[in-house]
Amino acid sequence: MNVHEQVQEGANRRRGLFITLEGGEGAGKSSLMDEAARTLEARGIQYLTTREPGGIRIAESIREIILNPSHTEMDARTEALLYAAARRQHLAEKVEPMLAQGITVLCDRFVDSSLAYQGYARGLGIEEVLSINMFATAGRFPDLTFYLDIEPEQGLARIAAGQGREVNRLDLEGLSFHHKVREGYRIVSGMFPSRIHEIDASGPFEEVAATLNARLDAALEDFGV
Amino acid sequence: MNVHEQVQEGANRRRGLFITLEGGEGAGKSSLMDEAARTLEARGIQYLTTREPGGIRIAESIREIILNPSHTEMDARTEALLYAAARRQHLAEKVEPMLAQGITVLCDRFVDSSLAYQGYARGLGIEEVLSINMFATAGRFPDLTFYLDIEPEQGLARIAAGQGREVNRLDLEGLSFHHKVREGYRIVSGMFPSRIHEIDASGPFEEVAATLNARLDAALEDFGV
Repeated sequence: MNVHEQVQEGANRRRGLFITLEGGEGAGKSSLMDEAARTLEARGIQYLTTREPGGIRIAESIREIILNPSHTEMDARTEALLYAAARRQHLAEKVEPMLAQGITVLCDRFVDSSLAYQGYARGLGIEEVLSINMFATAGRFPDLTFYLDIEPEQGLARIAAGQGREVNRLDLEGLSFHHKVREGYRIVSGMFPSRIHEIDASGPFEEVAATLNARLDAALEDFGV
Repeated sequence: MNVHEQVQEGANRRRGLFITLEGGEGAGKSSLMDEAARTLEARGIQYLTTREPGGIRIAESIREIILNPSHTEMDARTEALLYAAARRQHLAEKVEPMLAQGITVLCDRFVDSSLAYQGYARGLGIEEVLSINMFATAGRFPDLTFYLDIEPEQGLARIAAGQGREVNRLDLEGLSFHHKVREGYRIVSGMFPSRIHEIDASGPFEEVAATLNARLDAALEDFGV
């Protein structure tokens, strides 16, 4: 292949798909990420799994400011802007270059988390948090998003029963906060009906995984990959 | 005074004015801040002078990420979001409480700097940078802004001649960048004609200071303070 052909190939090469997983606490998101990855692998799709800050040092430094437990004076808008800044850097340095090389990116949480948690549950406004994220992403939104829906009572019970991972700061928020997050996700799903696929995550893990994989397979078929 | 009266007084107390100074490099902004402060003092107005990050520790940590010279991979949008985040925290912790107590705040640079530098000169778009700053300020814009206008050639010559301060990273940008900043400021001034007062900063310092003080005095008169 000569240089001209290589350039041609580069120009014609199809961009990778950008797929995100979303959901409240205890929905089983992390384990389902692995399931989705296996489905991609089974179809011979080159992929990368990631989650912000994803080892990107500027994004890591920003997250340190957000997560510093002594920063009790952190304003909610400052926090939303910092999440958007970390998102931008992770997107620019890691996600975009992969997509441009034709590699599919599977990302654990993205803009929809900010819309549900900060925009709706924290009360900053979904449209307002969306506006700063439109800036952060320069309009790059996922091609496909799976929202894992679960009753907060059930999700938190799973975490309490030690299924999956350790309890974190957000788990300890009041139950009403987690209900608001779920409400937020449902509003956001209604705003992007063709992008966001809702999956009932209340059943046994194998059942949820099977549903997710079938829906992902069908979507990949639709995308022609 | 009983508690009821105190509450009444608090409710009726007039909010302080929020005044900002803007301008390109070498316009004499820092020295003119002192002049404006003297004018406020002469009228018996309680005031505070500040500039971001202004000793606010979260804002200082954010600025450290922005200014770290090793962060050469910093994306322009990340940078704009970080400036907006630092601005939010400084506004929430320092400016708003002062204004609420009836104290006038005189701030060296604010949103207009981001619009001129990042929005216009760096090419991110004035409207786009404005949108993240509307979020950051929750709509709190200055009551009054003085834009000190100067030809970049003259401003940079002043700095080179050692008038005022040391050369910084921005001074070393190409002349065309500084021309763009000026163009940006003029567009922004046109967007907010009743808020932004343009002052010709090309004359000798005493002359510029006299003009600024006269304009500030007149504006304070208009605001009834």
